[in-house]
Amino acid sequence: MSVEQFKDVKAIVFDVFGTVVDWRSGVSRDAAAFLARHDRQDIDPDDFADCWRNHYAPAMEEVNSGRRAFVRLDVLHRENLDKVLIELGIDATSIPRSELDELNLAWHRLDPWPDSVQGIQRLKKRFIVAPLSNGNIRLMIDMAKRSRLPWDAILGAEVAGIYKPMPEAYLRTADILALRPEEICLVAAHNNDLAAARQCGLRTAFILRANEHGADQKTDLHPTQDWDIIADSIDDLATKLKTPIPQ
Amino acid sequence: MSVEQFKDVKAIVFDVFGTVVDWRSGVSRDAAAFLARHDRQDIDPDDFADCWRNHYAPAMEEVNSGRRAFVRLDVLHRENLDKVLIELGIDATSIPRSELDELNLAWHRLDPWPDSVQGIQRLKKRFIVAPLSNGNIRLMIDMAKRSRLPWDAILGAEVAGIYKPMPEAYLRTADILALRPEEICLVAAHNNDLAAARQCGLRTAFILRANEHGADQKTDLHPTQDWDIIADSIDDLATKLKTPIPQ
Repeated sequence: MSVEQFKDVKAIVFDVFGTVVDWRSGVSRDAAAFLARHDRQDIDPDDFADCWRNHYAPAMEEVNSGRRAFVRLDVLHRENLDKVLIELGIDATSIPRSELDELNLAWHRLDPWPDSVQGIQRLKKRFIVAPLSNGNIRLMIDMAKRSRLPWDAILGAEVAGIYKPMPEAYLRTADILALRPEEICLVAAHNNDLAAARQCGLRTAFILRANEHGADQKTDLHPTQDWDIIADSIDDLATKLKTPIPQ
Repeated sequence: MSVEQFKDVKAIVFDVFGTVVDWRSGVSRDAAAFLARHDRQDIDPDDFADCWRNHYAPAMEEVNSGRRAFVRLDVLHRENLDKVLIELGIDATSIPRSELDELNLAWHRLDPWPDSVQGIQRLKKRFIVAPLSNGNIRLMIDMAKRSRLPWDAILGAEVAGIYKPMPEAYLRTADILALRPEEICLVAAHNNDLAAARQCGLRTAFILRANEHGADQKTDLHPTQDWDIIADSIDDLATKLKTPIPQ
């Protein structure tokens, strides 16, 4: 797709975990401090982060399948943390609940990739910019305030009442924005998210995040469809859409 | 209440129409152009704005009473516009639907009071700042982008699924923010909004907007309860909360 064909796009919405922020390094940082406090330096904090993230999709599937009413991601993350502790053989009975609640907020403290803030700032000059993330509103607020992500609004699962990749997550977002799906572009580092968005009629932009899962990443190293735009970073996306660099 | 007692407050949420923006002048401006196009300069555009606003509360009451499922404010405004045309004796049959749809967006183009942007910018340095308005998300986005209102998120009726002054509008907002009601302060120029928020346990800040309804305003010229803070403007509120002036 040429940039010309993007002239009808009014809003650019973003996957966040992996696309805008580096969840693995951020969770690993807080996990390292936690493991050190509990004398469990034998556990690799990256493994802790990966293990926690592995429970992410199955937990949301409980909601999307209808087996469970919608609960926000903070709740799922907290339940998943309990499972991580069991899997990694960490005795949770000796750990104060408040400390685990605090560790759960690691997901609120993730750093953006180096290009994200400037890229979103540039895109904001021409488009509505908002997360279309599975993260809940408070999580996204805390993350944005910490790193100055300049969102126009916080959209996504909690506003839509359902998790991606269910079609309603994309279509209800379009409805809230009072836009047709083709007036919205989803930016994501994940082919499956883009595929679901395209099925709903959204425009698609793939961002390569080759280290989201660490040095040995196997997935999402290449676009698996002819996404409308393919970019190396969010800042590169802004350049491809001819958005001026702020002074 | 002393400022010291505000130390537990984490979020400041705002009524918008009348408190942050001057709805009457903004609607009147667009109404004047509309009336001129249709050769109806005999109608005072301020009366047009007042008439439109008079339908606001009754329309929301249809939703809050349960007689009608939740619909966003843009829908109610558009329905109310049809009623305004009838009441003012304007023949709508000759007016293209698209022109009325466009006029309905007058509510997206309201100017902030002169102190609002700086006041919110200052408060944002210390608190989460968000509208807790009956306006829908897209309306609030358009208004904010046009005037650089620096919200951290767009909360309010569409996110809560109910209109103020129903308690759920305040309590669901607190739940989304993962805060106790007393950790949130509502800022409003309307005593009834503050009364409903206080009933739910929120902190309250009254802003005097003596010209919201024009020179002959009769309502909300004085606080009717001992609100936690009483201020002349949002900037004055930021000063009272000892929030630094940005460089």
